[in-house]
Amino acid sequence: MKKLINDPANYVEEMLDGLCMAHPGLTRVGGDKRAIARTQGMRKGKVGVVSGGGSGHLPLFTGYVGEGLLDACAIGNVFEGPTINSCQDAIAAANGGAGVLCLFGNYGGDKMNFEMASEFAAMDDVQTRTVLGTDDIASAKPEEAEKRRGVAGLIFAYKTAGAMAATGAELETVATIAQKTVDRTRTIGVATSSCQIPGAAGPNFEIGDDEIEMGMGIHGEPGIWRKQLRPADALVDEMIEMLLAERPDDTRRVSVLVNSLGSTPFEELFILYRRAAEKLDAAGLTIVRPLIGPYVTSMEMGGASISLCFLDEEIESLLGAPASCPFWTVE
Amino acid sequence: MKKLINDPANYVEEMLDGLCMAHPGLTRVGGDKRAIARTQGMRKGKVGVVSGGGSGHLPLFTGYVGEGLLDACAIGNVFEGPTINSCQDAIAAANGGAGVLCLFGNYGGDKMNFEMASEFAAMDDVQTRTVLGTDDIASAKPEEAEKRRGVAGLIFAYKTAGAMAATGAELETVATIAQKTVDRTRTIGVATSSCQIPGAAGPNFEIGDDEIEMGMGIHGEPGIWRKQLRPADALVDEMIEMLLAERPDDTRRVSVLVNSLGSTPFEELFILYRRAAEKLDAAGLTIVRPLIGPYVTSMEMGGASISLCFLDEEIESLLGAPASCPFWTVE
Repeated sequence: MKKLINDPANYVEEMLDGLCMAHPGLTRVGGDKRAIARTQGMRKGKVGVVSGGGSGHLPLFTGYVGEGLLDACAIGNVFEGPTINSCQDAIAAANGGAGVLCLFGNYGGDKMNFEMASEFAAMDDVQTRTVLGTDDIASAKPEEAEKRRGVAGLIFAYKTAGAMAATGAELETVATIAQKTVDRTRTIGVATSSCQIPGAAGPNFEIGDDEIEMGMGIHGEPGIWRKQLRPADALVDEMIEMLLAERPDDTRRVSVLVNSLGSTPFEELFILYRRAAEKLDAAGLTIVRPLIGPYVTSMEMGGASISLCFLDEEIESLLGAPASCPFWTVE
Repeated sequence: MKKLINDPANYVEEMLDGLCMAHPGLTRVGGDKRAIARTQGMRKGKVGVVSGGGSGHLPLFTGYVGEGLLDACAIGNVFEGPTINSCQDAIAAANGGAGVLCLFGNYGGDKMNFEMASEFAAMDDVQTRTVLGTDDIASAKPEEAEKRRGVAGLIFAYKTAGAMAATGAELETVATIAQKTVDRTRTIGVATSSCQIPGAAGPNFEIGDDEIEMGMGIHGEPGIWRKQLRPADALVDEMIEMLLAERPDDTRRVSVLVNSLGSTPFEELFILYRRAAEKLDAAGLTIVRPLIGPYVTSMEMGGASISLCFLDEEIESLLGAPASCPFWTVE
């Protein structure tokens, strides 16, 4: 795979420099500068909202630092969790004296390092709470929902937690809305082609010229099935059916994210969205604030994911609150 | 190439339906519904701003219909210009009684069809003016600048013309700022991989596993050279040098667009931007409002383009005016 890069060893450093040069609202902080923080709008007394994860998923994770979203974000090497130090740096940057919510995907390394960083924060009298993204329905059955990985749907929790924190709410309240948003969000993805970690000898997985894999994770984790490519409508029907199987009884409103995993173009996302909207309408669900585009990627990986966030009044109101970061603006 | 689509014959229809379903500010209008128009904010007495072109380049062209940008857009099949009827429909939708600017890329079919549509409009007493995007420096030498194709830099003219029209300016004034923006914008792209028209038997061009092509057009038109892949910094240096060779003497400020041609991810765009910013700084140019992302694509084509818009006070002010469309928000 041809990449427009320099020495792979400098990939993350150069990427983060470019990100912050292009977006002066972001800055690199901490000892090894592997945390991204807001340069403005940080407020004393506001709960901080922090995330973190590996590189290679832009706009996730660092691209969601901004007004009404994340205050800071720890970032690791490609597909590797951030270090304990980076997590500490992000927590410190987001700390306004009212505690910090750590909101990130359910991956072992990330959990371990944020846990250690939270213990260090406690020694400095910084209170933290942790909420894990667990939206990927392909990664475990409903009875083991706590084992599920976090994928694209995590950004709904960024939005509601960020908006709640902006109201001046307490840490417990911010953590509660984040957890509720996670609990009401489900994602399923389908991969058509792989990606390659810069400097690696080859792609991170092999897939046949006519094959696709349903449920594959954003680091190439195995999915539910691998079969021949089929029409978009048939794929969407299957994906929506799986997502709606976990629909809560109490809602008739839903937000939808049709997300490119990387190289799948906007045209195809809109073709997928069209069918998804028809199916949701037929299921008696009203779509609110749909998002269509590359929001959580795996570099040049092909494919798309569909996320549903099953709304209640509180979540819907917070999703609509003003927010601004390099990749997501709500007016 | 694996595409998440249905019958290729329905590709454009389904894509346009999905686009308008996802973005209720857009609607399909005209006899064959191959024009996209704003559903709100159209004003009597305002000059209309219209564009048009083939499908397969989202966000271009239809994605730039919105407040302070385009009022309507004619859209053709993949990589084919819009029909005369679609151009007429777009002009009619954008007509607020003060005339319509037709602002599109310098391609033969598009020119011919907009010319015919403008003649029909004149019969209905709708005055039009035409300004052509000609920013692609790879497509002809400076002495033949009027032969150059329009590529990603066209969106700077969308922004200034749209902002000028929003002030209530007359058609001549809107056309003048569009032409000035085109005259002060230059683009060069580098392709790493091809794309495939839906339903076609194969990709629209062949390129070796280790090759890239400098200056290739967004429909695979031949570029300046084809060589082995080289480091990003070396590519950017060459691209910036070519762009700065046509720098006007009167400016020290520039807007930059680092654009993905499709499958090249954000990470690489930021690596390219970092070097571009360093080179522009070294050349004594201050960067204003950089844009980094997929703004003008060729579906899943790999590669990136760099556009420079050499600012004067008027262009800079108009680029900063509030605007909102599905893919570009200026607050």
